Amino acid sequence: MLVVQKFGGSSVANTERILNVANRVVETYTAGHNVVVVLSAQGDTTDDLIKKAHEICDSPSKREMDMLLSTGEQQSVALLAMALSNMGYPVVSLNAYQVGMITTSSHGIARLKEIKTTRLNRELERRNIVVVTGFCGISKFEDITTLGRGGSDTTAVAIAAALGADLCEIYTDVEGVYTADPRIVPNAQKIEAISYNEMLELASLGAKVLHNRSVEMAKKYGVELVVRSSLTRATGTIVKEECKVEKMLISGIAGEDDVARISLIGAPDAPGQAFKIFSALAKADVVVDIIIQSMGQNNTRDISFTVDCASLNDAKNVIEANKERWGIAAVDYNQDLAKVSIVGAGMVADAGIASKMFEAMYDNHINIHLISTSEIKISILIDKDYMKTAMKALHDKFCL
Amino acid sequence: MLVVQKFGGSSVANTERILNVANRVVETYTAGHNVVVVLSAQGDTTDDLIKKAHEICDSPSKREMDMLLSTGEQQSVALLAMALSNMGYPVVSLNAYQVGMITTSSHGIARLKEIKTTRLNRELERRNIVVVTGFCGISKFEDITTLGRGGSDTTAVAIAAALGADLCEIYTDVEGVYTADPRIVPNAQKIEAISYNEMLELASLGAKVLHNRSVEMAKKYGVELVVRSSLTRATGTIVKEECKVEKMLISGIAGEDDVARISLIGAPDAPGQAFKIFSALAKADVVVDIIIQSMGQNNTRDISFTVDCASLNDAKNVIEANKERWGIAAVDYNQDLAKVSIVGAGMVADAGIASKMFEAMYDNHINIHLISTSEIKISILIDKDYMKTAMKALHDKFCL
Repeated sequence: MLVVQKFGGSSVANTERILNVANRVVETYTAGHNVVVVLSAQGDTTDDLIKKAHEICDSPSKREMDMLLSTGEQQSVALLAMALSNMGYPVVSLNAYQVGMITTSSHGIARLKEIKTTRLNRELERRNIVVVTGFCGISKFEDITTLGRGGSDTTAVAIAAALGADLCEIYTDVEGVYTADPRIVPNAQKIEAISYNEMLELASLGAKVLHNRSVEMAKKYGVELVVRSSLTRATGTIVKEECKVEKMLISGIAGEDDVARISLIGAPDAPGQAFKIFSALAKADVVVDIIIQSMGQNNTRDISFTVDCASLNDAKNVIEANKERWGIAAVDYNQDLAKVSIVGAGMVADAGIASKMFEAMYDNHINIHLISTSEIKISILIDKDYMKTAMKALHDKFCL
Repeated sequence: MLVVQKFGGSSVANTERILNVANRVVETYTAGHNVVVVLSAQGDTTDDLIKKAHEICDSPSKREMDMLLSTGEQQSVALLAMALSNMGYPVVSLNAYQVGMITTSSHGIARLKEIKTTRLNRELERRNIVVVTGFCGISKFEDITTLGRGGSDTTAVAIAAALGADLCEIYTDVEGVYTADPRIVPNAQKIEAISYNEMLELASLGAKVLHNRSVEMAKKYGVELVVRSSLTRATGTIVKEECKVEKMLISGIAGEDDVARISLIGAPDAPGQAFKIFSALAKADVVVDIIIQSMGQNNTRDISFTVDCASLNDAKNVIEANKERWGIAAVDYNQDLAKVSIVGAGMVADAGIASKMFEAMYDNHINIHLISTSEIKISILIDKDYMKTAMKALHDKFCL
């Protein structure tokens, strides 16, 4: 069996944790399996490097930021390989160049295009444990790229897909996927199995256990995922196409407090308006989350959308440079918001879910700024300060 | 003009120093020159990484150590490129892969075999400032290698040679090459110009200003070197083939206190004996410095040689595994030694130099353990505790 195991930054935060990871890897290896290990940078390394860059200047070159950040992952793989080698196991660490992890050229938010398998397969054929840097890639210009925060999950799933691995295990510091963040909602329950689609909504809604692109990719290539703890023996959560467990109405609640809303008020009601705006934002590498368009006054349109707070400045620059040309009457920015969402494959069949959600907000005097719905989720924007209260209220309301 | 500028670890130790380096680089660039900058890891980064590795295990895999250490240089080049980019100059950082810095596969002590110039030239043609990682290379297996301590000097000279640069400037924290280490001999004088050969002896004898392999390479390819301070405007020391300044009898005094001596006593007097011993050591990547062979008792030979203290364990392992087969009667190890040397192109013409050196030791009651001479240097091994005294005494004796 070929198993890909991904360990996050907290799982390799210090020497003791690295030795713990080495033991987990050896268990799988000595059971006769081939193992590819994907690692993130240790603990706060990425944050420390970002801080260092910001000491140099306020907005560092994105290409050079990737050059800098990728060193964190390379340190992790070297240290784990040392530990495994010292324990007597054949092991080799590989960075994105050595693997051939080809991505787009969008520094900081690159997307994987192709993973070369020649070297990976050669090392596996020699029965080497292969330890690969997560998060990092190489553009067609041979420049180093990174996949954005949480990108190591994507690396792991992509390698599992490229090699046709039997299983991709995502090790983290929690025991699996919960119905809500247990730090916020103390009586949250661990989910035994969840479908790709439900996980996708949960992941993209700020349940930080799995990176959403990794779930998309797992779904696309049918990679079976297990989310489990690197510190305990708990069985974790299985993510796959069909879940045999009984469908719950609501499978989880997610909260994210890093949300900025931008409202463009009084845009002309003309074809191509949305295209102009969102293609300009895409060119500036601004990732937009929720988009809502509604009728404004005097035959105009109001367009609201959300971005993460780190992208707000880039978005502002694009909008301020273009708003006159676009004929926008006014722009309103708000970055003191949180997005709270309920997710569940059973939701579509029950018309009362949305009103039940809004009722929970009303009961707690929480004002709703924006509502967005899909077949398996409902998201609302509320003031950041009420996020925890809202999540607890929803958890109780839906008896998770 | 094409100028290669190398800045050592202390020159890029913190944000302020990096911004200082950026200013120095810009001065050269805005004067109309093309600039390639070669950097070491920041300050104590390499030592910190080695410490981290040793927390994992006592003797980490050398391949993985190179994977780990090379991240230090990559961080430096990214940070300097950010600074230059922020100042408005076109710049690109490149690591050993991106340049194509091909080395042997001896991890930790690799030697440069070839430097690809395609990407370097392409970036220079675009008038980019190119910032390259020193110290690091790539083996034919696409594994990361390092050139050993001080290897960044070698990287700089090799790039200067490969690109046919007009000048290679080695920036450091002292103002040039001195007649002795000014921290040990306070009245040491800065040398204005010195020949490759003299510099070579000084460098290999522990004057830590320039890495000896960099001087060898500069000599081989006729690269003109300047050693100067990154913190002051002093003119520095020129290293080139012909020195127009008047030849001094003795150009410098060097001391090194990281020396271990190994004596193999009573080896059979047979052909191939030295070959067997030193080829076994070379296979274990032990770099031997001084070798002395003398007559022993009963038609045997005594062979003594020195290694740096870090290599002593590796050397011991080789010797203990082979000494019976080699017919060695006894082995003696001593690592409390220092090597003190006097260097000068004028030395060969003056028979009194050696006796003057030994007299200075006698005057200071310093016992000499071993003597080794060449045409332009004399080295002695003495007890480590007397190194400073010996260097001062020699400096006074030869009126430098």
